[in-house]
Amino acid sequence: MKVNNKEYQTVWMEGGTVMLIEQNLLPFDFQIFESKTREQTCMAIKTMIVRGAGAIGATAAFAMVQGFIEAGGNAEKAMQARRAIEATRPTAQNLFYATGRVYAAAANAPDPVAAARAEAEEVWHEDMECSRSIGQYGAGLIQEGDGILTHCNAGWLAFVDFGTALSPIYTAHRQGKGLFVYADETRPRSQGARLTAWELKNENVPHAIIPDNAAAHYMSLGKIQCVIVGADRIAANGDTANKIGTLEKALAANYYKIPFYVAAPTSTIDMQCPDGRHIPIEERSADEVLWQTGLGKDGQKHTVLTCSPGSNALNPAFDVTPAPLITGIITQKGIIKADKEDVARLFG
Amino acid sequence: MKVNNKEYQTVWMEGGTVMLIEQNLLPFDFQIFESKTREQTCMAIKTMIVRGAGAIGATAAFAMVQGFIEAGGNAEKAMQARRAIEATRPTAQNLFYATGRVYAAAANAPDPVAAARAEAEEVWHEDMECSRSIGQYGAGLIQEGDGILTHCNAGWLAFVDFGTALSPIYTAHRQGKGLFVYADETRPRSQGARLTAWELKNENVPHAIIPDNAAAHYMSLGKIQCVIVGADRIAANGDTANKIGTLEKALAANYYKIPFYVAAPTSTIDMQCPDGRHIPIEERSADEVLWQTGLGKDGQKHTVLTCSPGSNALNPAFDVTPAPLITGIITQKGIIKADKEDVARLFG
Repeated sequence: MKVNNKEYQTVWMEGGTVMLIEQNLLPFDFQIFESKTREQTCMAIKTMIVRGAGAIGATAAFAMVQGFIEAGGNAEKAMQARRAIEATRPTAQNLFYATGRVYAAAANAPDPVAAARAEAEEVWHEDMECSRSIGQYGAGLIQEGDGILTHCNAGWLAFVDFGTALSPIYTAHRQGKGLFVYADETRPRSQGARLTAWELKNENVPHAIIPDNAAAHYMSLGKIQCVIVGADRIAANGDTANKIGTLEKALAANYYKIPFYVAAPTSTIDMQCPDGRHIPIEERSADEVLWQTGLGKDGQKHTVLTCSPGSNALNPAFDVTPAPLITGIITQKGIIKADKEDVARLFG
Repeated sequence: MKVNNKEYQTVWMEGGTVMLIEQNLLPFDFQIFESKTREQTCMAIKTMIVRGAGAIGATAAFAMVQGFIEAGGNAEKAMQARRAIEATRPTAQNLFYATGRVYAAAANAPDPVAAARAEAEEVWHEDMECSRSIGQYGAGLIQEGDGILTHCNAGWLAFVDFGTALSPIYTAHRQGKGLFVYADETRPRSQGARLTAWELKNENVPHAIIPDNAAAHYMSLGKIQCVIVGADRIAANGDTANKIGTLEKALAANYYKIPFYVAAPTSTIDMQCPDGRHIPIEERSADEVLWQTGLGKDGQKHTVLTCSPGSNALNPAFDVTPAPLITGIITQKGIIKADKEDVARLFG
């Protein structure tokens, strides 16, 4: 997508360097982070310079290339790199999908580095194609005049390009459909207020940021016709781990009989994981809840304590939405039901 | 309750001056705001120097006294003051209850100012007694080892003393019951993270601040046995307006079959209001969502933009929880069902 009239992806590779839009600086500054080593790229995933299912996946794929470069093509050493990459964000299925694919393609290849690079670029390219296709399928669910709720950021910044939850919105908007997006702020890291709003503004999609607390209120008033969210991991039965708060939106949509869609490439589906109880939920630092960074009226960035000093906070990064609350999963292969049979059919 | 080993109420009157704990400065600074005129007191309600159902009610009662003083006891002029006070926060039932009571007691009295003062002090005193009684009834609902979720601040800072939703928690805690409070942050104004956490820490009640998004997650894990929230207005059928986000917690509690209680004095019940659709919902400034104030690492307070520049926000201050989602209402007269018959019986 375009930023300042130049076409960008969230992540790409130049030689041995992984290039990343520095998402912790958005929406206030737009900068490219150049990660020259596998270790630096792991750090970039961990500190959320790059975040979002597909973007993490593509970055992990490129980190795997760096791992093979640094290992001089040695598969055993590259396996150590793989373990380090996989330790960065335990909930993100696309990360494991990407490291697994690149490792398998390169480990026994005559030129492991070249094979790793080719496979990583394929992962990267497929991510874009999946997002485009999800946009096409998902746009058919959006009617003229719809109010659409989304949570967190599953836009192009969360993938290589286009995104998942926002891709149908961009597609419908470009088709000329009038729509209005309610963007959940998505505390504690405010990806909705910072990233989704930034994306929507750049694409001129009519929208407003709402406190996470307000979603059910707007549903109760009949303002929301459809909810679309992303996914970090989908179990074989359709249970879906996504950003903390997704479950609350699903429960509210269920009560008000509003369709609730998960948009994700099939690489987000973990067939080894029978149901949501088996998805590990990452606990992040309490400081993300207690402290917030923003732009002061003096033009400087400040990190401020917004809570009562001396109290602790809990910070689970994800929750699991049970499959029965999900109307459908929008994949690059079409829209499926969130159940064992339909999920299995995708891989059949 | 005690602050720095001195006993305080949230609001009291000295001569013609209304004394208020400056709640916008909490939890970082503790200061008393001295409001010398009716207009200043209206401003204090509007800008949330004082906030919370009962505290607003008592403050409005004292503002009415200032109105009678400034009107030289003239009932017609005092009525203008009453209208101005009632225009400050349209959702708060206790405000209308208090102004109505003080006006009715003073308008035709031989000494209107003295009569207004006596009635306002009665409103103030009753608020404390109600909170104490709610604590007694509510504590019976709490079992040893319970996890309790609360939203926003319905603690002593929201009333004259003790509070409503937190009063059962304080009572159970003083009875020696082990419990753990999950305090919703309560965006956008973070009354949970700032005020509820501050209160709980001062009373040594074990607790953690959680992002509003995390409540359903902890319910799904079986960590929460009971939800207790306050109310800004209760309709005759039991529908309850409370801080935005309350509805989401009620929907989640309903799904997980967790008891969901509203704690409120009977003065919060508006018998003129048949159901929730008739409760006006205050819309507040988008800036409350877009900007946040906190304490910087330099020890200075900073107000920072935490959202993408150029995007708008919506900021409904309250939502309405339908009566069928409410397990019971904890009043000073006992625990009742949230339905027309039980509510009517309170006034019968």
